[in-house]
Amino acid sequence: MVKQERAARTRHALIQAAATVFAEEGFVTASLSTISRRAGVSNGALHFHFANKHLLAEAVEAGAAEAVRRITEAAQARQGGSSLQSVVDATHELMGSLAHDSVVRAGFGLAGDLARRREPSPRTQWQHWVEDVLRRAEHGGALAHGVSAADGARVIVAATAGLEVLGGQDASWLSRQTVTGFWEVLLPRLADRRDLDALVSAGSQHPPAVPPR
Amino acid sequence: MVKQERAARTRHALIQAAATVFAEEGFVTASLSTISRRAGVSNGALHFHFANKHLLAEAVEAGAAEAVRRITEAAQARQGGSSLQSVVDATHELMGSLAHDSVVRAGFGLAGDLARRREPSPRTQWQHWVEDVLRRAEHGGALAHGVSAADGARVIVAATAGLEVLGGQDASWLSRQTVTGFWEVLLPRLADRRDLDALVSAGSQHPPAVPPR
Repeated sequence: MVKQERAARTRHALIQAAATVFAEEGFVTASLSTISRRAGVSNGALHFHFANKHLLAEAVEAGAAEAVRRITEAAQARQGGSSLQSVVDATHELMGSLAHDSVVRAGFGLAGDLARRREPSPRTQWQHWVEDVLRRAEHGGALAHGVSAADGARVIVAATAGLEVLGGQDASWLSRQTVTGFWEVLLPRLADRRDLDALVSAGSQHPPAVPPR
Repeated sequence: MVKQERAARTRHALIQAAATVFAEEGFVTASLSTISRRAGVSNGALHFHFANKHLLAEAVEAGAAEAVRRITEAAQARQGGSSLQSVVDATHELMGSLAHDSVVRAGFGLAGDLARRREPSPRTQWQHWVEDVLRRAEHGGALAHGVSAADGARVIVAATAGLEVLGGQDASWLSRQTVTGFWEVLLPRLADRRDLDALVSAGSQHPPAVPPR
């Protein structure tokens, strides 16, 4: 393994370990020696990569921001930037990442940590994307009559923030079933009636049920 | 002032001060001396009332739990225990308390604090009440066709948890306008069509607009 590759692996291991420790203990309580031990590297190696705990937290937040960017861009590339289906798909992907990816979970959690609050957080990034898609959907006639893009976006952003926070204590809030139920309640109210049949609450990427033989 | 009354006032001031300091600094960072200074009492007086920080946090959480109980009971007494209007009214009251009452805000926040997680939290208490009302509404035919009490309750609980958390950084999430917009999106989907005209998204206790002269 060349030197550069080894350094990248150590850095990656440190970010993963920091995410796990932040999620378990919170930012304030987490100690650098717990993080380096968890990553299987020396304190010296940690300090070579990250001079302090705030820089580690920034790397974790950047990882979560990168995941939000990847998820929203992929949903938008598949479904278009004015389609409610892109928001449905991205919500499923984001909740799945919050459930299974400790860097995403910790990155969102740090945004709520009093010692770490700063803008833009992954939450704000998600909010702006949802607002943009809803505005374009409204402009393109894809929203139901009597629903404004602003009110629709606020309900989606509030509910996904709630699922994120409640999911930290009970993972069932992040399950595909819960997210599907959320969209089953919301889509008939948000979407133009003509689009409703084509919209999939379970997400368009959900593997289809096995057809009957 | 008799001795007992003075003790009750000191205890009240300590709980208020603890709520403010927990909300500003988080539970882990908050120091007992900051709290006693904020309450305008000596360290000795603090220790007379609360042997440690966890007992202070418990008193703050109990204050928030008491507010949830008071709010939900009042809404239910006015509107009945199977009425969506009672949930609408209680949501407005709860968000108002989160915005203006530091004990309620801190009590909810402590439930999300890693160092303090325990059941039942004010969030769980709120969740159980919403689930109960929605179940009774479903039973009484007050829910729209095609919406289950479970899915409806999950959307309400997730969205209110989201408003609570987002409201900690930007109070506009807790405003009457935001909560009204949330119910304007949700009520037409949740409520039986026959009840819809009678339901008030802004809350039945909202002071009516000044009539034109």
